[in-house]
Parts: sequence; C-alpha cells; structure tokens
Amino acid sequence: MSLLVVGSVALDSVETPFGKADNVLGGSANFFSASASHFCPVRLVGVIGNDYPEHQLEPLKKRGVDFAGLERADGASFRWRGRYRHDLNSAETLETHLGVFSHFAPKIPDQFRRTPFVFLANIDPRLQMSVLDQVERPQLVACDTMNFWIESRRPDLLALFERVDMVLLNDGEARQLTEKTNLVHASRWILERGPKYVVIKKGEHGAFLFSRDSVFYAPAYPLESVFDPTGAGDSFAGGFIGYLARSGDLSEASMRRAVIYGSAMGSFAVEQFSIGRLLEVTREEIDARVRAFRQLTAFETELPELAESRT
Amino acid sequence: MSLLVVGSVALDSVETPFGKADNVLGGSANFFSASASHFCPVRLVGVIGNDYPEHQLEPLKKRGVDFAGLERADGASFRWRGRYRHDLNSAETLETHLGVFSHFAPKIPDQFRRTPFVFLANIDPRLQMSVLDQVERPQLVACDTMNFWIESRRPDLLALFERVDMVLLNDGEARQLTEKTNLVHASRWILERGPKYVVIKKGEHGAFLFSRDSVFYAPAYPLESVFDPTGAGDSFAGGFIGYLARSGDLSEASMRRAVIYGSAMGSFAVEQFSIGRLLEVTREEIDARVRAFRQLTAFETELPELAESRT
Repeated sequence: MSLLVVGSVALDSVETPFGKADNVLGGSANFFSASASHFCPVRLVGVIGNDYPEHQLEPLKKRGVDFAGLERADGASFRWRGRYRHDLNSAETLETHLGVFSHFAPKIPDQFRRTPFVFLANIDPRLQMSVLDQVERPQLVACDTMNFWIESRRPDLLALFERVDMVLLNDGEARQLTEKTNLVHASRWILERGPKYVVIKKGEHGAFLFSRDSVFYAPAYPLESVFDPTGAGDSFAGGFIGYLARSGDLSEASMRRAVIYGSAMGSFAVEQFSIGRLLEVTREEIDARVRAFRQLTAFETELPELAESRT
Repeated sequence: MSLLVVGSVALDSVETPFGKADNVLGGSANFFSASASHFCPVRLVGVIGNDYPEHQLEPLKKRGVDFAGLERADGASFRWRGRYRHDLNSAETLETHLGVFSHFAPKIPDQFRRTPFVFLANIDPRLQMSVLDQVERPQLVACDTMNFWIESRRPDLLALFERVDMVLLNDGEARQLTEKTNLVHASRWILERGPKYVVIKKGEHGAFLFSRDSVFYAPAYPLESVFDPTGAGDSFAGGFIGYLARSGDLSEASMRRAVIYGSAMGSFAVEQFSIGRLLEVTREEIDARVRAFRQLTAFETELPELAESRT
C-alpha cells in the first residue's frame, strides 16, 4: 500500500564534530521518504524554490518516491543551518530561512487523494488539517509537531488530534503540550484527545509507543559512531509508518515490529550527513539491524507467561 | 548463595515534589540489602554512629540481612540531605555529613570472608581494594563508584578494575572516567582495563550491560508515579547481583534476566521514601513486574533468527 507524506523539502547546512556539509538535502519530507521508500511506494507533497537542486531528488525518484505533489514556487527554498556540539544531543540552530515554505498551502494531487496511509510531518497544524480535508478515507493518519506549534497553534493542534489516529512527538514536546512531567501521564492526556496511538521519541534514549491499553518501548541502537543526528526522527517515522503501510496490519504485534523498523531506520540515518545512508542501505542491512535490536533487548524469563500480563 | 555488601549505612532527609522525609534509612548498603534480600541471604559491612536508630534495621534483619559486620563507632552517623525538583532527574545535595563514615575502614568478619558474591558499593576505591584483600576466592566481585572518586582516586580506581569482574556506574560517570561521549566506546575502554562486564545505568532511561562480545539493554519501567528516586541505583544493583547469587548462573541468559530483576527492584525503590517499598514488596509483585518488562520490550520479528546475529 502507498503512503502520502506532506512536509518540508529543504536544504540543510550542518556542522558536527566530525565534519560539515553545505546545502545538502534536508527537511522532514525528504528524510521520511528516503526511509519509507524501503517499505512501500511514497507520494510526496511539498514546495521548493527556484534555487533547489532538483537533480539531487533523482535517487529518491528511483527509489519509488512520486514527486507529482512537489510544487515549484518563485523564491528561495527552505534552508536550515545548524551545529551539533560534542555530545550530539541537541542541535543549535544558526539560521532558518523559510523562503517559499512560509506561504506553503499543500495541494494534494487527485491521484494522491485516496492514499491509504498519510503522514503529516511537522508543519502548521492548520495546513495539516487542510490535508485531511483533501484526502479520502485514509486507513491511518499520523502527525508530527514541534514546540513552535504547541506554543502558537495550540487550539488548532488539539482540533487536529481529533482527526488523526496517531501522534508522534518528542519527550520535551509531550511535556510542553500536556504540562505533565511523567510520560505515562502525558501519553494518556494525548490519547484522551482522540488519537489511538502516541509515539514519544526520546532521541538517543529510544521511543515509547502508547495505546489505550498497552505500552511498548524500543531503545535507540547503541551505535559506535553517530555522525549527524539531523533527520533521525523523520527517518524513524518513515520506517515506522512505511512498515505499517507495507504490511497493512495494524495489530499490536505489527505496531511493535513497526517501531523496531522505525528505530532501525533512525539508526541508519545518523550514520551519514543528509539522506546519504538511507539511500544506500540494503534490505539485508535493515533486516540485520532489526535482528540486532532483538538481541539487544531479548531475555527469557523463568516465569510462566500469565494471560493477564499479555495485554 | 550468599552475598556480601560493603557500603554506607546512612540517614537521609529527602524532599521531593510529593512530600518530605527526615532521617530515614539511607545509604548504598541499606538500599542494596533491602533489594538483594528478596533473592538471597545478605551480609552487610558498614559503620554507624551512636545516634543511629538501630531498631529501624530490624525489618532488614528479619529479611535475612546479617549485620555482624556493622561497626558502631563513636560519633555521628553519615547523613545526607537532598532535594528533587519537579523533573526528579537529579538530586540537589543540600548537606552531607560524613561523620564516622569518614574514618571507615571495612573489617570483614571471619565468617563473611568466603562469601561467593561481593558487591563493593560506592566508597573510596582504596577501601574497596582492602575488602578484596580480606575475602577469599569470591565467584563474582562487582563495584560501583562515583564522580568524586573518579576525580580524586583515579589510579586507585583503575587498579581496582584489574581485580573486579564487573563495574557498575552511571552514564555521566562512565563519560567522565573514560573521556568518551559514546557509551559503546566508554564501555570498551573499561572492559580493556580488566572487568568482564560493565553496567551503565541511565536512570529513567534504563541500563546497558556490556561484555566483550555482547550488549543488552533494559529500559526503566515507565512508572505512573515516581515518588523518590533516592537509592534506585543501589536497589538495581541489589536485584541484579542478588539474582545472580541466587541462581549461581553467570551465563549470558542469566545475566540478562538479572538486569531485568535489577530494573524491577529499582522501579519499586522509587515508589516510596527510603527502603519502604523494598521491605513490603512481595515475590508475586516482583514476578509480575518482570513479566511487565517482558511485555514492554517484546516483539516478534518475521525474520529468521540467524546464527551470526545471536552473539
């Protein structure tokens, strides 16, 4: 099954302790697509300016990403410049130029309107809502968000929550949104506002998947070399929702596997600048990392598995 | 099999957003013993002053903790006063009075010298070493440490590492000691200095167990109410090494289970002030939480398990 993503198509300039890259492919929709394309066909909706190096999108097209929804607007493309210090935990934003992205109004092409899986990457919740007004009966809608929208568009965000199946956000954003320090309480607060699932991303500390009656946790893979953390969250989302779209299976068991595939793709994304590693990683490498995740957390109890503990 | 712990027997005064407790049982040896006593007989070596409320140790004695190695010295007991802010992540130390603990020189009673499992809680590495000079052929020796000793007693600590099987420390301490940000690199640095196992504790983000050829990760349990984080690390150690002492099995499978039992005991410790919850928790509750940990991280892959991924 195919998957629609609406988000940013940007140019990043990134400096890490290991090197720097200038004007490389970035933005939530690019990272998400590069990751999800390993699982299913991807349809992208976004906007670029006259200055975007479109030929650099060719590898994504070859991987099955359909750019029929990529609008070319007159002006500059979205550019972000950031730096990571030695601990790689948080990006320091040096410059943000929204360019044509500041007037972005997503237009979903006719042939994209019946896409069964939809990911609303981190954009203005009013735009995320406008996408939902243009698509027809999707099987699963997931959205991301960020601190800026939580602060400036809170009512819109909460209205959006009533119409999505799943919310992905990081731990700091979950605490900011819900005003609850405890992530169990924070997830419940969000679940009470509509979504059936909440994914709380904790960066190098892994991710939680909460539903009304279960909780699943996947660690981040303990990599020997994290090169550039940019895009890890969107690559996680791409693997996660890409896996669900491929399987078409929304059971608890499938959701758990999907989180692991998401974590695997996030772990590849940080091994190189931009989407470099996501473009070259093979199916065998992805499967091997999923097995490594299993080895990382697997343990056998000596205890009988009780029926009541299986929820 | 029995288990020897050498560490502090203190009085804590703690303030959290949920309440405060004054002069309650604290110290690494108390938390460790309360936790480990659920798995095996525990032998404690420590020191208290004239002011210690000894009757409050009765519940630990009833749980099988042998206090034959508890020295009574003339002076004040070790007292710590601390406060946790809303996020509960780090303690703010308001007062530390070492009292008789500042002259502590562990004397291992004759009947304790052949204890097969030994835990050297966080004390001066020179004292930890002196314990090793007094015990005979233990099957497993584990030690904890802290930033203060890493800074002030580095050569002693590294000499100690050559004589222990396992080091437990938190992520900040691992980075400080090894000057490596990446925890995979940090663990390797420590493993190269003697220990066969390194446990890196990440508080609310779980714990890693590294050996030369494997890595295991256990999350912290996503509790709805963390009441007081004091002693979580020592309670983890008590469950971890207590489980190993009970099973006498140091295989990879057993070590992994032990980490989960440690994580379970750490999760109980934080549910009340002091060792309150550790004294009352039942075998059934411990087993139920171990099952809950399994539910928290369990997933089935659709992939065949390859032999090479089993290392």
